[in-house]
Amino acid sequence: MASAVNKTAHPFDKTRLEALLNRRFFYAPAFEIYGGVAGLYDYGPPGSSLQANIIAEWRKHFIVEDHMLELDTTIMTPAPVFETSGHVARFADWMVKDTKTGDVLRADHLVKNVLEARLAGNQEARGLAAAPPTEDKKKKKKNVKAAAVQLPDEVVAEYEKILAQLDNYSGPEIGELCRKHDLRNPDTNNEVGEPQLFNLMFASSIGPTGQHPGYLRPETAQGHFLNFSRLLEFNNGRVPFASAQIGRSFRNEISPRAGLLRVREFTMAEIEHYVDPEDKSHEHFNEVRDVKIVLLDRHVQEAGQSTTVTMTVGEAVDKGIIANQTLGYFVARIQQFLLKIGINPERLRFRQHMANEMAHYATDCWDAEIHNSTGWTECVGCADRAAYDLSVHSAKTGQALVVRQALKEPIVTEKEVPEWNKKALGKTYKADAGVIQKMVESMDQAELTRLKGELAQGKTVLKTSDGRELEITPEILTIERKTFKQSIREFTPNVIEPSFGLGRILYTLLEHSFWSREQDVERGVLSLPPLVAPTKVLIVPLSAREEFDPLVKEVSSKLRKAGIFSRVDDSNTSIGKRYARNDELGTPYGVTLDFASVQNRTMTLRERDTMDQRIGSIDEVIAVVTELVNGTIDWEAACERLPAYDGVQAIDA
Amino acid sequence: MASAVNKTAHPFDKTRLEALLNRRFFYAPAFEIYGGVAGLYDYGPPGSSLQANIIAEWRKHFIVEDHMLELDTTIMTPAPVFETSGHVARFADWMVKDTKTGDVLRADHLVKNVLEARLAGNQEARGLAAAPPTEDKKKKKKNVKAAAVQLPDEVVAEYEKILAQLDNYSGPEIGELCRKHDLRNPDTNNEVGEPQLFNLMFASSIGPTGQHPGYLRPETAQGHFLNFSRLLEFNNGRVPFASAQIGRSFRNEISPRAGLLRVREFTMAEIEHYVDPEDKSHEHFNEVRDVKIVLLDRHVQEAGQSTTVTMTVGEAVDKGIIANQTLGYFVARIQQFLLKIGINPERLRFRQHMANEMAHYATDCWDAEIHNSTGWTECVGCADRAAYDLSVHSAKTGQALVVRQALKEPIVTEKEVPEWNKKALGKTYKADAGVIQKMVESMDQAELTRLKGELAQGKTVLKTSDGRELEITPEILTIERKTFKQSIREFTPNVIEPSFGLGRILYTLLEHSFWSREQDVERGVLSLPPLVAPTKVLIVPLSAREEFDPLVKEVSSKLRKAGIFSRVDDSNTSIGKRYARNDELGTPYGVTLDFASVQNRTMTLRERDTMDQRIGSIDEVIAVVTELVNGTIDWEAACERLPAYDGVQAIDA
Repeated sequence: MASAVNKTAHPFDKTRLEALLNRRFFYAPAFEIYGGVAGLYDYGPPGSSLQANIIAEWRKHFIVEDHMLELDTTIMTPAPVFETSGHVARFADWMVKDTKTGDVLRADHLVKNVLEARLAGNQEARGLAAAPPTEDKKKKKKNVKAAAVQLPDEVVAEYEKILAQLDNYSGPEIGELCRKHDLRNPDTNNEVGEPQLFNLMFASSIGPTGQHPGYLRPETAQGHFLNFSRLLEFNNGRVPFASAQIGRSFRNEISPRAGLLRVREFTMAEIEHYVDPEDKSHEHFNEVRDVKIVLLDRHVQEAGQSTTVTMTVGEAVDKGIIANQTLGYFVARIQQFLLKIGINPERLRFRQHMANEMAHYATDCWDAEIHNSTGWTECVGCADRAAYDLSVHSAKTGQALVVRQALKEPIVTEKEVPEWNKKALGKTYKADAGVIQKMVESMDQAELTRLKGELAQGKTVLKTSDGRELEITPEILTIERKTFKQSIREFTPNVIEPSFGLGRILYTLLEHSFWSREQDVERGVLSLPPLVAPTKVLIVPLSAREEFDPLVKEVSSKLRKAGIFSRVDDSNTSIGKRYARNDELGTPYGVTLDFASVQNRTMTLRERDTMDQRIGSIDEVIAVVTELVNGTIDWEAACERLPAYDGVQAIDA
Repeated sequence: MASAVNKTAHPFDKTRLEALLNRRFFYAPAFEIYGGVAGLYDYGPPGSSLQANIIAEWRKHFIVEDHMLELDTTIMTPAPVFETSGHVARFADWMVKDTKTGDVLRADHLVKNVLEARLAGNQEARGLAAAPPTEDKKKKKKNVKAAAVQLPDEVVAEYEKILAQLDNYSGPEIGELCRKHDLRNPDTNNEVGEPQLFNLMFASSIGPTGQHPGYLRPETAQGHFLNFSRLLEFNNGRVPFASAQIGRSFRNEISPRAGLLRVREFTMAEIEHYVDPEDKSHEHFNEVRDVKIVLLDRHVQEAGQSTTVTMTVGEAVDKGIIANQTLGYFVARIQQFLLKIGINPERLRFRQHMANEMAHYATDCWDAEIHNSTGWTECVGCADRAAYDLSVHSAKTGQALVVRQALKEPIVTEKEVPEWNKKALGKTYKADAGVIQKMVESMDQAELTRLKGELAQGKTVLKTSDGRELEITPEILTIERKTFKQSIREFTPNVIEPSFGLGRILYTLLEHSFWSREQDVERGVLSLPPLVAPTKVLIVPLSAREEFDPLVKEVSSKLRKAGIFSRVDDSNTSIGKRYARNDELGTPYGVTLDFASVQNRTMTLRERDTMDQRIGSIDEVIAVVTELVNGTIDWEAACERLPAYDGVQAIDA
């Protein structure tokens, strides 16, 4: 029987988790011995393994199961690509510079911080307590303080109006605001210069001449789109299909301060699913129709509310809350993936973007938001980019990025078509022959039908633009009804894009997995599922004495053959301490080799969360732990196969 | 019985291979619809899978089997790191600019091309045929032509001397050569400017102020070194251990023109193995001692020869050809890895760097060179970087990057130590007290022994630098013999670095795998081993008719459960054509589902190289193909379990 575990005996303690992650080198600030650089992190051994395991599962869950076409494209991108995609013009924030120190501030943040501080000062001066800053505000920005000065009512109203529509101001308008309201750098009280666009892409230059500007991609998506024709051909010319890519992207964030949640270099996993714009159904939609999801749609948000609803994906699509089956399919698949790797289902929701917050290329977007200590955080975006990207690249390069589809039923149309006796036309009208032809060829079907009628009567008269009248007879022109058959349909596919920020998912997963033992708050545990845990089994010999070596090697090699990643900890410390250290690393199982192992070939098996210990023959324990790691049995079932070990206290003390 | 296959019926045809790789989208020039950028490539679905499989095997072969610590570090690196590592100063080539067009040329290449052309012109003028360009030269550079002008003998001698020591000239010296010999841009006949260093790192800027220059890493190694202390702690403070990383690196090559063999952005896999400089033995060396390798050592090369020798790794280390066991261990493991993924053992050798060609950080280096259509190509470097990197970063940052080891036997030393009666010293000498102390403290052991002797006699006299004589008595100073015990040894580990260029390995593997069917040169085959083949099994239903759907799904799902990656090709073309197409993709096995499958639940199994076909029940065939892909049986063994299928001709015609 498995023991009960109380994982909520101690409230979540972020400081304790961060200390653990740093101490066990899940990740650490990059270039730390050089003082570090904001927004850049290195993953150490457990972080790298965790990330590699998440990626492996992602590849299996999305690429293999849905037969996607994997790509590995280039990060360093020539400027024209991002000029076309709109990133050079629009992937930017407005910045202002302190006129004396040269410090750079994000323009909208400056306006917000200064006006909010003045309003707070006004509250104070009027004897009203300023509203306490929210949890979010406390963490994300420096406290800007303004003197307790009372403001006239009309100024208060004006400030409030500015704040409410802050996202709508252009750079020059913000500059105007700064001058009008004397908004200064709160750190120095210096004036700031004119707002300038600061592009968030890292710029470089390709080749030795300096004449070929390039950018580091801020997303992997353009690499998919530029290869669309090759991908389509690889897929035998058919849609729907999807390309997928896992790789680094870069964003030169102004002032990143949120750990792995906002970084300048990150690993993304992106899918671009190409569909017929007239048919966004999905072949496997029925397999996910009954998946229940928590939704926060745009109408609710636009009404200023945040009430979520729970319904099946099928219901959401049927009711038109999620626009089409393909979007719905991916929303469900994203949720299945996140739960599989260990995200808490009660802290996951799908939020629809409001019209004014969508990226420049998107027509609809649902974010998988996961709740963590900073609030709800976008971890996966699922956007309908429509035909935007393929259209702009096609227009710029002159390359057709389209699907050509044989129509099952050709479209048959009939048209009136002019037929000329060119010889007679030239002979009769000489220089006017061309004019006449042009006039007739540009007529619409109604006019041609009228002309046909008149010609059937013997003649018709055309009026030239300079007012002359030219008589035309059936010898020169006949109008005939002809049949046309169109057997190919050509269209630019729409793109549905699920886009995963792996670092955000990884960090949030670590928060969801962290707890402390009821009896000792210092003993932190990461309850990572075996699927993603960096190490699956810890092998713990009682000591580093040579007599354990053959057994350690045997167990290690048998686990390797079973495809189970294990590590040996033969360090010179108690077994209990070694297990505690590996609880911090999220290692789900441990096996202990002691003198009984040498004598009887038995081994104990320990489960991380419950600290339960069972005992069995070495081969039996390996068989059980293999099934546990592969997820074919759970701990309850394992307990039925292996008797309890009665030396538990001695070892975990 | 398996059929014999003649893979050398047609000579290797690079054009045909390149057409295949392009057509089947193994890889393609990046940004192709924008005209492409030299040295940047995108991997399509088969190339991505092949790369992912090579990486998965690399991870298993090196990281898992040798318990290395995996890292995932940052690409965007602040400039000070590469200033310290020496890359800012030395990771560069000398460039010259055409004074009129601004075209950039590599300075040493300009000198070489122009002087060689003049020498050829001289030969021609003297009526001697110029030596035909070698294979390599034809491919790698544009033909530079000079008029057939006879040169004085002393000029010929001077040119030849310059060419022989071209690698020794500094930039200013090359500038001098250009002026003295009027060396001009051969494309335009314009003069060139002063040589300037062109650094091969891509430069950028981190953050919004433009004040933090950064570079894209040209290797992953520095990311390991900067994290050394954390890694050491993770490994419980012990060496040897290794860190490993797979990731992108960037080099802004001047004019890359060799396909995947010289690119500006590439995936590397690097190991940094940290060892005690006084003990470079390797725990598992005996496991590889008998591995036979082909060697080309530096002495042979320095004697102007290229004769290789074959010997075991054990012999090479014993004879001191390979400097130590750890280098030898990695040479053997590198070879095992390369052969496992399908590199032809007859086209692999290990070449030692000559003293003058080593990178600035290396003290010894062996390259795994693989032969391909361009000649012998460095695909893996295995360098002993000694303590270079850890030392320079430690010196720069003031952080100790050292190993502290408890000595088993403390080192005990005895020393003469001065002991002062400070009160008496101050009272007697006042202002000179400090001077006297300094003089005595800076004495070596021999001087202190002499002093001790004199003091035993009653007194000693010290001469100050300004010529005064000061008398010292035993009341003021005694010299005593004391015992010192050192129980910790501190050292900077040395680093052995195997560094893999995955793109070069991948391309060379494709060359080694390519051949054409004896009966039809148009039918190219890639004989990739199942281990790395993008798709392991092709499922081919006779047609896309619905009656095959349930079987296709069943086979597909059973293979997936067995962990075998398969694809279905139900395109509207003959089975033979579908197989031919998948021979080009390197798919080792194919199963055909036809009407017999529907009636009798049988399936045929086809082997790619022999085109043999066998038949069995669906479950039997799946069992056999699973073993084939996992490498537990070979095709001969499979043939014993499954009878031959007699419909071969009909299907492969």
